Order: sequence, then structure tokens, then C-alpha cells
Amino acid sequence: MELNPWGSFEVKDYKKLMKNFGIDKIEPSKIPEKHHFFNRGIIFGHKDFGKVASAIKNKKPWAMMTGLMPSGKFHFGHKMVADEMIYFQKLGAECYIAVADIESNLTRGISLEEARKTAVEEYLLNYIALGLKPKKTKFYFQSQGSTDYMNLSKFVSKKTTYNELKSIYGDITPDKMVSAFTQVADILHPQLKENGGPKPVVVPVGVDQLPHISLTRDIANRMKFIPPAATFHKLMPGLKGGKLSSSDPGSAIFLTDTPKEIKKRVNKYAFSGGRQTLEEHRKKGGNPDIDISYQWLTYLEESDKKLKQTYDDYKAGKLLSGEMKGLLIEKLSKFVEKHKVNREKARKQVDKFLK
Amino acid sequence: MELNPWGSFEVKDYKKLMKNFGIDKIEPSKIPEKHHFFNRGIIFGHKDFGKVASAIKNKKPWAMMTGLMPSGKFHFGHKMVADEMIYFQKLGAECYIAVADIESNLTRGISLEEARKTAVEEYLLNYIALGLKPKKTKFYFQSQGSTDYMNLSKFVSKKTTYNELKSIYGDITPDKMVSAFTQVADILHPQLKENGGPKPVVVPVGVDQLPHISLTRDIANRMKFIPPAATFHKLMPGLKGGKLSSSDPGSAIFLTDTPKEIKKRVNKYAFSGGRQTLEEHRKKGGNPDIDISYQWLTYLEESDKKLKQTYDDYKAGKLLSGEMKGLLIEKLSKFVEKHKVNREKARKQVDKFLK
Repeated sequence: MELNPWGSFEVKDYKKLMKNFGIDKIEPSKIPEKHHFFNRGIIFGHKDFGKVASAIKNKKPWAMMTGLMPSGKFHFGHKMVADEMIYFQKLGAECYIAVADIESNLTRGISLEEARKTAVEEYLLNYIALGLKPKKTKFYFQSQGSTDYMNLSKFVSKKTTYNELKSIYGDITPDKMVSAFTQVADILHPQLKENGGPKPVVVPVGVDQLPHISLTRDIANRMKFIPPAATFHKLMPGLKGGKLSSSDPGSAIFLTDTPKEIKKRVNKYAFSGGRQTLEEHRKKGGNPDIDISYQWLTYLEESDKKLKQTYDDYKAGKLLSGEMKGLLIEKLSKFVEKHKVNREKARKQVDKFLK
Repeated sequence: MELNPWGSFEVKDYKKLMKNFGIDKIEPSKIPEKHHFFNRGIIFGHKDFGKVASAIKNKKPWAMMTGLMPSGKFHFGHKMVADEMIYFQKLGAECYIAVADIESNLTRGISLEEARKTAVEEYLLNYIALGLKPKKTKFYFQSQGSTDYMNLSKFVSKKTTYNELKSIYGDITPDKMVSAFTQVADILHPQLKENGGPKPVVVPVGVDQLPHISLTRDIANRMKFIPPAATFHKLMPGLKGGKLSSSDPGSAIFLTDTPKEIKKRVNKYAFSGGRQTLEEHRKKGGNPDIDISYQWLTYLEESDKKLKQTYDDYKAGKLLSGEMKGLLIEKLSKFVEKHKVNREKARKQVDKFLK
């Protein structure tokens, strides 16, 4: 079982994954502030979150650090990550967001200019529209970081070996090595002197990013940093099932889509857990656990009660597949209409934020 | 035969070295301006110098790029390299000097602060006292370079492979890989947009630095840069023979030494090519080719005529070993006395230069 932050893979067995990589289970009761991502297992595990929880409890400084890969349009999978960031910001985290423009250049050939445009127009704008407070956020580009940050991304090379890198990443090329060191510097960035020195930091990530967390934790222990904590979330599946990808219109819904487009695409592509015939569905019930519309609602529907009702009704055959899709379409449509207004408001803040 | 820029080694057979690594012989007659380093084989070879010679001839822009490792006190071995730099500056080169403080940290554990102090107090001050024109020189620190330079040191990782690095450097650790990429960015630095774009560049180096030149030339060909040229010099031997090292007082004479110290150390340590007895020396003559005092004079004595006379007299037994040492002591002493004055004058320029 190998995790590759630069490839794509599907997790088949989360239990095995957690055991193999030392990820602890999230206990929703121990979470500082409720969020439906926890009790639905969307944020399913963590590493070392205790020290962050204790900083929150004792009102000590702590930070959330995350990165974004500036490629493609902002979709509902990205929104889920943004919601998690905003959750941590509301809990009191200093927020650090790195635009991985060096990495997107090294591993995907995206120019720095293109990366900058995408980062601001697609990510920053939507983050703010979703509720991220720009004043309390350090949003920076890997290619434009401070001198100490830039140098840190080189100095960390002294704190590891080729064999360690191979054991964490599998085969690693020079460009991936440089990407990894840049990521390590990103994750340690909130602990630099210029940012107030060592402090607990949580990094919300998908499990594909675990190798970066592992390397950073090892290196932090060999320097004067506190090993960063991480929370791990399950990525939203694509509409058709499989991976959610910006480049496949059958898999993603974008935050800029219109209700009309949403209706068309959900009806056309969303993989259904319903039965072949109406009669059979009424009799045997649908399977919400494989129904993508239902899966998406676990991310989007905040009311536990409503969600449970939907689940039960579908299983009992009371709710039809088309109706399940209808619930998702309604949820998404209402959201994008409201979000359109918020995005226009956010635009002014973005301009101000970038000076 | 392997060259290691981070280790120490002695070249036994220059002919074989040149053949193995594709270094061409310098033809002193084709050199734009005479210098005794060329006709004495001190600068013995080059790679691709033709394009620099042609830029000089056609009055096109060209540059000289070199780096310094900020460790130890400035000695006569360093002076030789400085003389070469100043020679190129007088020929019209734009001069770029990189202080390798990232590399000295990664490979020798020297702090950035310590490196800065050494670079300015020992190197920059002496360079200027020796005749380098600071106004025509871009003197910079690897840890404080421009954004484009910093990013270039990461982007070059995409233009090579682990196998290529291994074939050039032998076993290479992550920190050495990062050092190498930083060196590549240094050598390509004069060709960045901010420095006027692609142009012929010459890098004067000892052969131990050849791996950096080879890697940079390969990478330049894969980017929009002109592969840099290089000249190769023989390093001055230590007084006792072997390697000249700052940390061994029996091997180096520093530019801050007094005539009294010089006399004492040359007499005590300089390896002699003379005979066991005065009688034997007068009869059979000495061996200037292994006599370190004579070897040093080939670097320091500008007059070809005087040097030849010394060689012939020593071989004929007319000049004794003590007298040979005396010639070196006189040369060094006269130099340090004059240099002391020049260094004080240079101090003001250094302060101004650093703003």
C-alpha cells in the first residue's frame, strides 16, 4: 500500500489504511466544536491532533496550514476543503494558505503566471465568498515566499536521506524531491520566527498528502519545530463515481455553474443506487451507500435529521432515484445562487487583500 | 576517475583528466590579453571558451561568474582566483560573485551569519583591495538572491534525472542535490531576464568544480540559456606540499600575515627541492619542479624573464634552497605590506558597496 501525492488512487479499505499509516480515529465527542464532517466520518482520522485541541482549550496560539494546487476550476470537492479551513479559522486558528505554484510548475508544467491567476480567481475568491476571513489569513505563493521560508525549503534537505525519501514516497525524482522540500517548508512555515515561532499546527488533508505530513513530522523532530498534526478527510467522489476531476464535466459541479446546468448534469451523470424499475425500487428500496447524490448530500446537508430521513426513505423505497437527484439539485442550486452574490461581494475584498 | 566538488583530491595526471572530461588545452596565443597564468599552465584548460573570446572580440555583452565558499581566512590560494576574476573584469566582463552560504550551511554546517561575516571581511574586502571594481560587480548571497534566482534553483530540478546526477556526482545525498541545483542557478544567474538575458558566460574554476559546470551545461541546453564556458586552473599547493588549507598553518600564508610571520613559516614549512648537502646542491643542482617556493613563484612572479632565471639558476646549483625561500619571502612580504594599505582603502568601498 503506497500513497503517492502526485498520482491518483482510490482508498478501498480505510481501516487498513489507518492501521498501516498510524492514523487515529476521530472521536466526534472530543472535537472542540461540532461539525457534520466529523460525525459522518468525512473527516475520519487524525495524527497528533491532541496538542492542537489542548492549545484551543488553553487559549494558546495555534495554526492551520494548508496548500492549494492552482489548477482547474473550483468545484464542490474544493468547497469541502474550504469549509474545513473555515471551521478551523472560526475555532481560532491563525491561517496559512500556500499556493503550490512551484509544485504545479514542477509536476504539471503550469506557468507561474497561470498559477497566480487561477489561485486568485478560482481559489482565493471562493474561499472568501465561503467565509474565510482574509485579514486573519496569510495567503502566499511558494514562488514569492519570505527569504527564511525559501531558505528553509533548502535547509530541510540536510535533515533527511535519500533512503528515507524513498521509503516515504517510493521512487522519487529530483523535481519531486524539490517539491517535497518546498511542501515541508510550507508546513513548517507557521512556526518560523517571523510567524511567532514554534506552535501546534494542524494540516487538513486528503490521505494522498500523508507522505508530506510524515516527512515533515520526521524533519520537525530533527529541527526546533513541533511536529505538525493532521486531520484526514475523504474526498468527495465524482458525480459518475470514481475521482472528482475538474477536467471531466461528468464528474464535477463547479461553484459557477447555473441551476440549469446543475439539473442537466446531475440528471445525466449522477450514479444512482436505485433499482432498475419503479416497482422493484418501491418494493426493495434503493442503496444510499452507493448513490452518489446521497453521498454528496452527506457533505452538503447540514441537518443530521434531514439527512437521516433521506437515507431511511431511500432505503425503504419511499424516495425514488429521481427524487434523490432532485434533492441534490435543489441543494446545489440554492447554494450557487446565494454564492453568486457572495462571490461578487468577495471580489472587492480580494482586490484589497492583494494590495 | 571521479571529481567531487565537496571532497578533496589531488590531480596526478592532467592529460588524462583533460581527455576524460573533455577539457581543451588553452592556447596562450589565442587569449585576448596576456597573463602569466596562461603561458605557465596555471590556467591550463577550458571548455567552450571560444564563444566568450568571440564576444570580447565583437564587443558583445558577456559575463564572468564565480562563487566563493565563505570559510576560513583569505590566503594566497584565494588571491590567485581573485587575480583571475580581476583579469576577466579588466577584459570587460560583467562580474557575478555568489557567496555560497546555502552550500556552506548544507555541506559544512556554517551559519548564515558567520558566512556573511567571512564573505565580507575576508573575501569582498580582499577582492576590492586586489583591484576588483565593486561598481561593476554583482556580489550576492545564495540565501538572499532575487525571487527569479531562488525559483530557478528549484525549476532546474525538472531538467535532470537522478541517474544523470549520479553519473556526474557519484553518490549524491538530498542536501548535495539541493546544493548542486543552487550552484546551477548561480551559474545561470547572469543570463536571467533581470540581468539582461542569455549571453556567453565564463566560470573560472578548479577542476574539482567541473561536475557543477557539466550539470549546468546540460541543463542550459534544455532551457533557454547559453551553456556556460569554463576555464580551469591548477590550485596552488600547500607550503608543505599537498592541499593548501586555511585550517593548517603549515600549508597557507594569509594576506594578513606580517613579513616576520611569513619568514618564519616559509623557512619552517616550505617543501624544498634542494639537495641534502650544500656541496651536492652546488654540484647536481636543485629540482624546481618539486620545490614549493619555486612553485609559488610561478603564481606570484609576473616577469617571465626573472622566473626563468630563477629556474635555471636553481637547476644549475647556483641558487641554494635557502635563497629560493628568500626570493619567495621577499615577494610575499613586499606584497602583504602594500596590500595592508590597499585593504584599508578598500574598507570604505566595502561599506559603501553593502549600502
